[in-house]
Amino acid sequence: MRTLNVALGERAYPIHIGRGLLDNASLILPHLKTPRAAIVTNDVVGPLYLERLTEALRAQGVRTSAVVLPDGEAHKDWPTLNRVFDGLLGERCERSTTLIALGGGVIGDMGGFAAATYQRGMPFIQVPTTLLAQVDSSVGGKTAINHPLGKNMIGAFYQPKLVLADIATLDTLPERELKAGLAEVIKYGLIRDLPMFEWLEANLERLLARDPEALAWAVERSCANKAEVVAADETEQGERALLNLGHTFGHAIETGLGYGEWLHGEAVAAGTMMAAELSRRLGWLGDEDVARIEALHVRAGLPVRGPRLPVSTYLDLMASDKKVEAGRLRLILLRAVGRAVIHADAGPELIAAAIEARCA
Amino acid sequence: MRTLNVALGERAYPIHIGRGLLDNASLILPHLKTPRAAIVTNDVVGPLYLERLTEALRAQGVRTSAVVLPDGEAHKDWPTLNRVFDGLLGERCERSTTLIALGGGVIGDMGGFAAATYQRGMPFIQVPTTLLAQVDSSVGGKTAINHPLGKNMIGAFYQPKLVLADIATLDTLPERELKAGLAEVIKYGLIRDLPMFEWLEANLERLLARDPEALAWAVERSCANKAEVVAADETEQGERALLNLGHTFGHAIETGLGYGEWLHGEAVAAGTMMAAELSRRLGWLGDEDVARIEALHVRAGLPVRGPRLPVSTYLDLMASDKKVEAGRLRLILLRAVGRAVIHADAGPELIAAAIEARCA
Repeated sequence: MRTLNVALGERAYPIHIGRGLLDNASLILPHLKTPRAAIVTNDVVGPLYLERLTEALRAQGVRTSAVVLPDGEAHKDWPTLNRVFDGLLGERCERSTTLIALGGGVIGDMGGFAAATYQRGMPFIQVPTTLLAQVDSSVGGKTAINHPLGKNMIGAFYQPKLVLADIATLDTLPERELKAGLAEVIKYGLIRDLPMFEWLEANLERLLARDPEALAWAVERSCANKAEVVAADETEQGERALLNLGHTFGHAIETGLGYGEWLHGEAVAAGTMMAAELSRRLGWLGDEDVARIEALHVRAGLPVRGPRLPVSTYLDLMASDKKVEAGRLRLILLRAVGRAVIHADAGPELIAAAIEARCA
Repeated sequence: MRTLNVALGERAYPIHIGRGLLDNASLILPHLKTPRAAIVTNDVVGPLYLERLTEALRAQGVRTSAVVLPDGEAHKDWPTLNRVFDGLLGERCERSTTLIALGGGVIGDMGGFAAATYQRGMPFIQVPTTLLAQVDSSVGGKTAINHPLGKNMIGAFYQPKLVLADIATLDTLPERELKAGLAEVIKYGLIRDLPMFEWLEANLERLLARDPEALAWAVERSCANKAEVVAADETEQGERALLNLGHTFGHAIETGLGYGEWLHGEAVAAGTMMAAELSRRLGWLGDEDVARIEALHVRAGLPVRGPRLPVSTYLDLMASDKKVEAGRLRLILLRAVGRAVIHADAGPELIAAAIEARCA
C-alpha cells in the first residue's frame, strides 16, 4: 500500500492506494467520528463489493446502513440524490455518521454532495472503484449533481476524510470504463507532467492489460498530480482550472447528447482533442504534437472526435460553463505537450472552427 | 444607520441596520464581485420592493435579473429551489454573479442554499424584509431547505457578504409575521441577555406598535447577540446550539403539522415554553420564572402551547433533530431566565411529560 497526502491544513486527508484495501476496515476506522456509517453505492458496484465492505466494517464494530442507487450519469440528478436523503433520514443517520461513497465518479460526486448538505454537512469517505474515480474524481472535494442545462452545475467543494483506492476493484471494471478512465490519466501528462506522458506512451498496453503494477503506478502518479494542484488551489481560483483540460468541450458533449450517452472520460478525450486543435490554430502546438496526442488516445481506445452536434449547440452549452467570467469563456489550452494554460482570448470563430474540425 | 460586524476572519461581513437602506445601492456595490446580481424574492415581497431594489442597482450600473418564488414555508423545498437554478442558468448567471435574497426567512434560507451550491458557490447578500429574518435567520450563514421528514435537513453553512436590514420594510409586515419575529427576539433575552429580556418586558407594546426606534433597538441588539455567538462557533460545534432554544420542539411542530401551518416563530414560541417547562421539572426554573416567560409571550400574541399532536409524534420527529448525538437528544434548556445550556440527560419520560403539559 502507498499513501499520499492531500495537504489542505485542517482539511488534509490521506489517499491509500493498493490491492485488497476494501477488506481492511482498520484503514477506515481512524477516520470515523462515531462507529456508524452509511454506504452509498449503485446496483452494479453494490453486488460486487457492498457485502465485503459491510462485513469488514461490522467486524470492527461499525454499524452500517446502505443506499443502493441506479447506475449511470443519467441518474446524477436531484431525484436520485433525494433517495440518499430519504435513506439517511429513514435510518436516523446523524450529522456525525460517516457517509462512504462506494463506486465510480457518479457515486462519489453524488455521495459527496449528499454528505456536504445532509444536516449541513456530515463526514464522508471515498472508496472509488473505477479508474476514473481513483485517478481523478475521488480526490479534491468537488461534488455535484447535473442540471438539464449543465453538467455539475449544482454542488459544493467538500473534502473527504479519506480516499481508499483498492486497485483490485479494477479487475471487474468493464473495458469501456477502463478506457474512459485513461482519458483523465493522459490529461495529467498533458497539462503538467511530460515524463508521465512519455511513460504512458511506453506503457499504455500494460494498463489496458490491467497489469497491477502499471495500474498502481498510474493511479499513484495521477493522485500525486491532483493532490499537488488541489492543495495549491482548493476552490479553483486559478491553477486548479487546468485540471479541466478538455472538460468544457466534454461537458457540452455530455449535456448535448443527454447524460450517460458518452462516458465522461470519452467526452473528455474528444474535448481534449478539440483543445489541442485550438491550441494548434493559435500556433502553440505543431501538427506533430496534435498527432502525438491523438495517437495515444487512439491506442487507449478513446474517441478523438466529438459527436456531430451543431457547432452552435456546442457554443451554447459551453457559454454556461463555470469558467465563464464577465461573459468570456476561459478555456484550458496547451502551450506544449506537458504544459496547459488558462486562455480567455480565443474568439468564438476560432473556437467554432476547432470544434468543426474535430466533429465526427 | 448602524453597522455591526460578524467577525469571521476572511468570511467577516457587515450588518447594516436602518430605515430606507433598500434604495441605497451604494451600500451593496462594494460587496459585488462583478456588476451583476440575481435577486431571489417571493410573490408577496416582490410586488412591494423588487422594483425599488432593482432600480437602485440599475442606477449604479448593476445588471440584474429576478426569480420570484411562491411565498411560504410550504415551498422551502427542492422543486422551488430548482426554480432558482433554472432562473440562474436561463439568465446565464456566472459563479461571480451575486445572488441577493430579498424577503423573509424562507427566501433567505433557500436563496442562501442556492448560492452555496450554484456552480459550487456564488457570492450572496441578504436583504431581510421580515422581523424574524432581520433579527435571526439572515445572520450567521445557516442555509437550508426542508425534507418531508425533517425541517432544514438539507443545507449548508454559507456566509453572506453583507446583510442589509431595512427597518422600513417592517411597516408592511403582516401583524402575524411581526409577532412571529418577536419569538426570536425574546429568545436572545432568554438564552444570554437578561437586560434585553427586561427591556422587552418594559417595551414590548412599542414593538407591537412598530415604534421605529424600538424596532431598531431590538434588531440591533438581536444581531449583536447573534453575531457574537456565530463568530465564536460558526458551524455549531458547541455554543451556537444555544440559539436553538425551543427549536427542536418547534421543528417537530412545523414538520408534524405540515410546513407553513404554523409560522416558524409561532412554533419556536410554543417550543420555548416546552423547554421552560422541562427546565422547571429539572428544578432549574421556578414556577414564577415559567409564568414570567409565558407572560411575555402572551403579550407578544404568541402561542404558549403546542398543537395537540400525539406525544409520540413529537418524540419521533425530535429524534431526527440535527443535535442528536449517538442516539441521544441534546436539548437547549434554561438554567435561569437569561442563561441557556445544552443538556443531553433528560430522559424520554421527562421530555414527554413536559410536552404533554404544554400541549393545547
